[in-house]
Amino acid sequence: MSVLLEFAMFPTDKGESISPYVSKIIKMIHESGVSYQLTPMGTIIETETMAEALAIVQQSYDVLEPNCNRVYSSLKFDIRKGKSQCLTQKIKSVEDIIGKVNK
Amino acid sequence: MSVLLEFAMFPTDKGESISPYVSKIIKMIHESGVSYQLTPMGTIIETETMAEALAIVQQSYDVLEPNCNRVYSSLKFDIRKGKSQCLTQKIKSVEDIIGKVNK
Amino acid sequence: MSVLLEFAMFPTDKGESISPYVSKIIKMIHESGVSYQLTPMGTIIETETMAEALAIVQQSYDVLEPNCNRVYSSLKFDIRKGKSQCLTQKIKSVEDIIGKVNK
Amino acid sequence: MSVLLEFAMFPTDKGESISPYVSKIIKMIHESGVSYQLTPMGTIIETETMAEALAIVQQSYDVLEPNCNRVYSSLKFDIRKGKSQCLTQKIKSVEDIIGKVNK
Repeated sequence: MSVLLEFAMFPTDKGESISPYVSKIIKMIHESGVSYQLTPMGTIIETETMAEALAIVQQSYDVLEPNCNRVYSSLKFDIRKGKSQCLTQKIKSVEDIIGKVNK
Repeated sequence: MSVLLEFAMFPTDKGESISPYVSKIIKMIHESGVSYQLTPMGTIIETETMAEALAIVQQSYDVLEPNCNRVYSSLKFDIRKGKSQCLTQKIKSVEDIIGKVNK
Repeated sequence: MSVLLEFAMFPTDKGESISPYVSKIIKMIHESGVSYQLTPMGTIIETETMAEALAIVQQSYDVLEPNCNRVYSSLKFDIRKGKSQCLTQKIKSVEDIIGKVNK
Repeated sequence: MSVLLEFAMFPTDKGESISPYVSKIIKMIHESGVSYQLTPMGTIIETETMAEALAIVQQSYDVLEPNCNRVYSSLKFDIRKGKSQCLTQKIKSVEDIIGKVNK
């Protein structure tokens, strides 16, 4: 099984500059050893089970919890059985059809 | 603590009619005893901890897993410390300001 | 064609209490005459075209723009051709299968 | 003003393999000249106004409309006034705090 999770999580009680909080989450993910990719709108992780992906979500909240009274999070899962979908594979599927993308 | 989770989860390998699959998830949530509200675009649950909310997400996938090869899910969390936000409270906050809504 | 749009839009530079801002958006939607339903996690509107739905998104931002430096929004569309899906229909499809829901 | 939009849009009436459809959208975005980044979970575009970003959403649906009866889309906006946030800037803000990321 392959689980792709794209998510953003941030406090909404801290005003406009949230990068110190987001950075703590990225640091935790980096140290967890999970495959991940940081994007301008969130973080994409790849795990082999839902349980692993949900554990990262819980740990992300645990990182913010001591300092934040209100937290918002938006998530998307794409879960496939019997098919590896490494973080670069889906982009390659598109490029196989229309040629090199991203500018 | 109060956790509001709005989520949709559905197979993408089953064609256009997904209500049989969605229904199994709603049935599981209904029987779990958690507070929930079904909307035309998903289900909103309220729990006291992130762990409870994430357990419902895991169980929702477990319901689909035997019959579905590919599953998509979209989720939003609103997590507050020290403040009860029952499922009707947030609508009331808006109605206190602009009067009765929904038509 | 039937377009269901579930969305939340709020400032992230105003601290924890966002209901005054959200209320302005709901008021605009209410006065626009579009079919809508307020939920604890956002607003669901139903329109006949994508253009109408996107116009509501633009107008929602226009309501916040004068007073907010940073705005976050999360949206989901479910778009069907040749099938009416009034705001209550999708819940009925589930209830036809598993019986009365919501508690 | 700077608008970052992360979105995914795909048919749900076509079974598991949606890359032919997604590819058409990416091709349109590529040819539109807008700044974009393809990720394993969607596409991130950057525009100067909400109107430009919403036009891309409309055009994405227009690409799918002739061949798809049901379309699902998930979107997130991050909109800032008076601050350029090019597609690489937000990642840099995090890296300034915790060092080089992505593995």
